Amino acid sequence: MQTFKQPNRSEWKKLLARPVIDAAALEQKVKTILNEVKTGGDASVKFFTKQFDGIALDDMLVSEAEINDAEKELSIELKQAIQQAANNIRRFHEKQVSEVEVIETMPGVQCWRKSVGIEKVGLYIPGGTAPLFSTLLMLSIPAKIAGCKEIILCTPPSNMASFPGTDTGGGKIHPAILFAAKTVGVTKIFKAGGVQAIAAMAYGTQTIPRVYKIFGPGNQYVTCAKQLIQKDGIAIDMPAGPSEVAVYADDTANPAFVAADLLSQAEHGIDSQVVLIVSRESIAVSVEKEIEKQLARLPRKEIAAKALENSKIIVVKDEAEAIDVLNEYAAEHVILSCANADLVAEKIINAGSVFLGNYSPESVGDYASGTNHTLPTNGYAKAYSGVSVDSFVKKITYQKLTEQGLKNIGKTVEVMAAAEGLEAHKNAVSIRLKG
Amino acid sequence: MQTFKQPNRSEWKKLLARPVIDAAALEQKVKTILNEVKTGGDASVKFFTKQFDGIALDDMLVSEAEINDAEKELSIELKQAIQQAANNIRRFHEKQVSEVEVIETMPGVQCWRKSVGIEKVGLYIPGGTAPLFSTLLMLSIPAKIAGCKEIILCTPPSNMASFPGTDTGGGKIHPAILFAAKTVGVTKIFKAGGVQAIAAMAYGTQTIPRVYKIFGPGNQYVTCAKQLIQKDGIAIDMPAGPSEVAVYADDTANPAFVAADLLSQAEHGIDSQVVLIVSRESIAVSVEKEIEKQLARLPRKEIAAKALENSKIIVVKDEAEAIDVLNEYAAEHVILSCANADLVAEKIINAGSVFLGNYSPESVGDYASGTNHTLPTNGYAKAYSGVSVDSFVKKITYQKLTEQGLKNIGKTVEVMAAAEGLEAHKNAVSIRLKG
Repeated sequence: MQTFKQPNRSEWKKLLARPVIDAAALEQKVKTILNEVKTGGDASVKFFTKQFDGIALDDMLVSEAEINDAEKELSIELKQAIQQAANNIRRFHEKQVSEVEVIETMPGVQCWRKSVGIEKVGLYIPGGTAPLFSTLLMLSIPAKIAGCKEIILCTPPSNMASFPGTDTGGGKIHPAILFAAKTVGVTKIFKAGGVQAIAAMAYGTQTIPRVYKIFGPGNQYVTCAKQLIQKDGIAIDMPAGPSEVAVYADDTANPAFVAADLLSQAEHGIDSQVVLIVSRESIAVSVEKEIEKQLARLPRKEIAAKALENSKIIVVKDEAEAIDVLNEYAAEHVILSCANADLVAEKIINAGSVFLGNYSPESVGDYASGTNHTLPTNGYAKAYSGVSVDSFVKKITYQKLTEQGLKNIGKTVEVMAAAEGLEAHKNAVSIRLKG
Repeated sequence: MQTFKQPNRSEWKKLLARPVIDAAALEQKVKTILNEVKTGGDASVKFFTKQFDGIALDDMLVSEAEINDAEKELSIELKQAIQQAANNIRRFHEKQVSEVEVIETMPGVQCWRKSVGIEKVGLYIPGGTAPLFSTLLMLSIPAKIAGCKEIILCTPPSNMASFPGTDTGGGKIHPAILFAAKTVGVTKIFKAGGVQAIAAMAYGTQTIPRVYKIFGPGNQYVTCAKQLIQKDGIAIDMPAGPSEVAVYADDTANPAFVAADLLSQAEHGIDSQVVLIVSRESIAVSVEKEIEKQLARLPRKEIAAKALENSKIIVVKDEAEAIDVLNEYAAEHVILSCANADLVAEKIINAGSVFLGNYSPESVGDYASGTNHTLPTNGYAKAYSGVSVDSFVKKITYQKLTEQGLKNIGKTVEVMAAAEGLEAHKNAVSIRLKG
């Protein structure tokens, strides 16, 4: 990690800049696959599944039997953990449901707003060695609470002979994903991954239904596909970038804990962003020593080491400056390992999720505290929120006026419409008041 | 208007499809202007203002004096109407502020969510003969309530010698816009329009500050510019399309009222989308007769007539089918001129804003009922909401665990992290529990 001692404010922007990822190079490739699936439907999805995942499928829909069998492959411990996490996530997200309140803005003019679940949503969970069943919980639980009627899941079939620690593999979905899907009530699960899965959900195929909004992480091809289908009117959860954490540590921080938090971010991928902000340089030195110790024991140490190479330590002159750096960086995850974490947290205005104190590691939020782990990266936290029940609803507004209500508000509307040069707008009121 | 009698369900999609607007043709032009402003700053913005608006400006920032003078140009009637509308909009949007509630998902695990205003937002109001001061109210009032610190406005300077009914004109902003801006507390107003204004707010210039999210309507160039700057990480309110209304009228509807509502939508532009759904064909006949009568008297009759040419009347077999058509079309505005509007409204799942009964014309929502008039068009209402206070905040999540809380949740996190193959995530918990 590179250390910057009290860098000048004018240098912050450059110092905290994320690497620019140029998707233009992929765009043509991705467009081709999107178009193929749009016209070719199921056959095209299967073709690309064979080509990219090496799996030839007859049926993409995961059967009831496969879903029920999954349970047998998992330890009781893991099933309990998934259920506990689901409970916490449910408890937190249930409070995000907003009640309808009718507001009489003027006598006889009633207005209200109602949240209605997006009818059809698609969730995408990538494949690979690590089955991201936690992400499935984070997406499907708020979708259920929101009242989405059709919640479909696309995830690629595995090309491993068998998943580690299980008797199942090749051409299947990891049992932890199937179990999580069943636990939360996902409607339908399809064996499809990558750009072809995004295309299938965006345009619909004979088997995979078209949805109105697509959620979930993915590699740069999936990210690019999600960006492109937006132009065709399909909504997406949010723009994506590599995962990131910013930790602020003062003298009360435990260097071993801080090191563990930085490493847990770094192990995600070589492009993971890790920033450590310290009030004194000696804290950084202790943390770095701890990183060295812990890194050696990690199975994903090569990845973590690579990510740390690009990581930065910033020594600030005081807490106020630490807060300013954090707000300028606008991290996906902010960990406050400092004396007065509550007060500092109140001053954070740009962040995805904030972790307060020495006993709130990021990994509790990644899995089970109850908050959502699908969060804005890449500085998007300046304008975007993480996924919540809000992400799965539209908030429709309503108004109902009595005849007297229209009389009360009529003049205002007529005068404004006339001033904007819209006589027909004015007339829609006048004709009713004449009646 | 073309009438379709009980069309087959399989034809609905085609019948209700919006015209496809191909932005690709503009894209290169728009990209060029975006890039020019990105590198050229103020000088480039002024260059394009001269080129497109025909106005040479020394200073883009509207002075205090100009803002204060605006008041004198307006009738008391209009000022009162603007203030009344602002009050109603404020009253409705204030209730959208959500309180912080701490949720203990497990003993010792506290989670909460806080809405924080997006620090810097940019509003765009187009120029032309009709000054859209109502849109300024609709955007700036929720921005203020959300707590946005910097709310800037870009709107092109007029090239008219003088605004109709005023003593001010050439190179100025319409006084109604300046008055509305002052009423609601917009921070800074700049004379800049079109793609160059969007670019200035997205990238910042010497004079115009960079913002994190851009709101507001515009022509196809502005719409295209907003789409493109999204790729650079600047958020936008929502994708845009031509304005639209769907009216459902049964025997209790007043044909003159319905005609007035359809015309008020049609006068927006020749691309306005108007759909009338009726339970009996005779209702449509009466409405069309009324349209003919009212149309002749409208100043914007050519525009309205053009829009109506592409408009559709759909005769449905019953109310249930009417509701299905409305949900399939997912209109920006839905007017329910029917007997049991409340019951029908409950079954609407795709709409921007709904107007219930015979005394709730769309124009009350456009100006003054209190609901927002920046709404999803083009079928986006299936996945998007209109602008609200939500649009101007990020909802940051927080978690704070006690040592005991971490003990309670620790095992769950460790088991899940291990199952996802993320040992460093597990270790961030284990190292704290060992301590």
